[in-house]
Amino acid sequence: MQIACFLFDGITALDIVGPYEVLQRLPEADVRFVAKQAGEIRTDNKFLALVADHGIDEITEPDIVVVPGGFATRALEHDEETLDWIRAVDANTTWTTSVCTGSMLLAAAGLLEGKEATSHWASLPRLADYGAIPTARRVVEQGKVITAAGVSSGIDMGLTLAAKIAGDEFAQAVQLGIEYDPQPPFDAGSVEKAPDQIVELLANMYAGRV
Amino acid sequence: MQIACFLFDGITALDIVGPYEVLQRLPEADVRFVAKQAGEIRTDNKFLALVADHGIDEITEPDIVVVPGGFATRALEHDEETLDWIRAVDANTTWTTSVCTGSMLLAAAGLLEGKEATSHWASLPRLADYGAIPTARRVVEQGKVITAAGVSSGIDMGLTLAAKIAGDEFAQAVQLGIEYDPQPPFDAGSVEKAPDQIVELLANMYAGRV
Repeated sequence: MQIACFLFDGITALDIVGPYEVLQRLPEADVRFVAKQAGEIRTDNKFLALVADHGIDEITEPDIVVVPGGFATRALEHDEETLDWIRAVDANTTWTTSVCTGSMLLAAAGLLEGKEATSHWASLPRLADYGAIPTARRVVEQGKVITAAGVSSGIDMGLTLAAKIAGDEFAQAVQLGIEYDPQPPFDAGSVEKAPDQIVELLANMYAGRV
Repeated sequence: MQIACFLFDGITALDIVGPYEVLQRLPEADVRFVAKQAGEIRTDNKFLALVADHGIDEITEPDIVVVPGGFATRALEHDEETLDWIRAVDANTTWTTSVCTGSMLLAAAGLLEGKEATSHWASLPRLADYGAIPTARRVVEQGKVITAAGVSSGIDMGLTLAAKIAGDEFAQAVQLGIEYDPQPPFDAGSVEKAPDQIVELLANMYAGRV
């Protein structure tokens, strides 16, 4: 089972490492990190480089594709090479997935038209620009397309997908393996729960970027 | 504020990317990925390479050190070069932290003697071999030393530390930024909560490796 994890300069690392850490534990998982060109890919802040072992020309028929987000997706929404690859692999995937603003790329590729989808909360409304139905849930399933909300939600998406592929017990074993028993010290992880002034602060910071 | 994220062949990627994704958002964060030698570092399954921009000889006085885990820590517990570096940086850090079996390295370096500490649940009892007090909590604070439980717990540790450094409001803003409003599809993320047969399955799988 080939799992293509798409990388691009400016990604948010946890967007891809969250689902990767779950999906790599699936039986027969064959994970491939892939970018437009193979090589080092720097994250949003440039502090961390992940390595794309493959260029997109080498990975043409993955069973699963995971498209992560980051501020850089804003420009990639207009990058035909990226969108063409996403469309081409989606034609043969069993599962097409995204985390955070990765859904903006699925949307820009035309894969979410008329479908419910989620994204990072700050970019969620813009999904409608591409004919998708913005849906404020953490993980949104529409047939073979699964979109997840911001950054950390890819772990939940990964477990949801792991259960579909390998069963609930296997997914629970993965959850125990990564000791995913979250206990955040605050309850401010969504726009509904965070203090208003913090939502405003971040919304201003993100405006026009996501 | 220099934050050293330690890498080694065989790490579990989420162990380090979780806290990194939180701590990189701190004001004036200067994150350095560091390994015994600079270069590509492969994770446990070899599917993903992270890049260590620095060798340990270059990073000698970080303000914060984060030591992640993975099966490979078992061998590193006897690697004097690694333990010497951990001891040397700890002498000057403001915070010394670990995720998962990273605490086994802090323990082997002699930093946890007589201190409460946590680790991945499967290796937790072994902390006692180094004179630490195994403590089954998700995040354990002992002065400037903070240890976190398995894999995903580094996100919670990162937020706890972010609040200490930059205040509760800032940590909440980070939590909202990474949309950390966890909704795992199952409640099997700890040995207390997972079905007995799943705990047994994994305990057998991990025996002697962590």
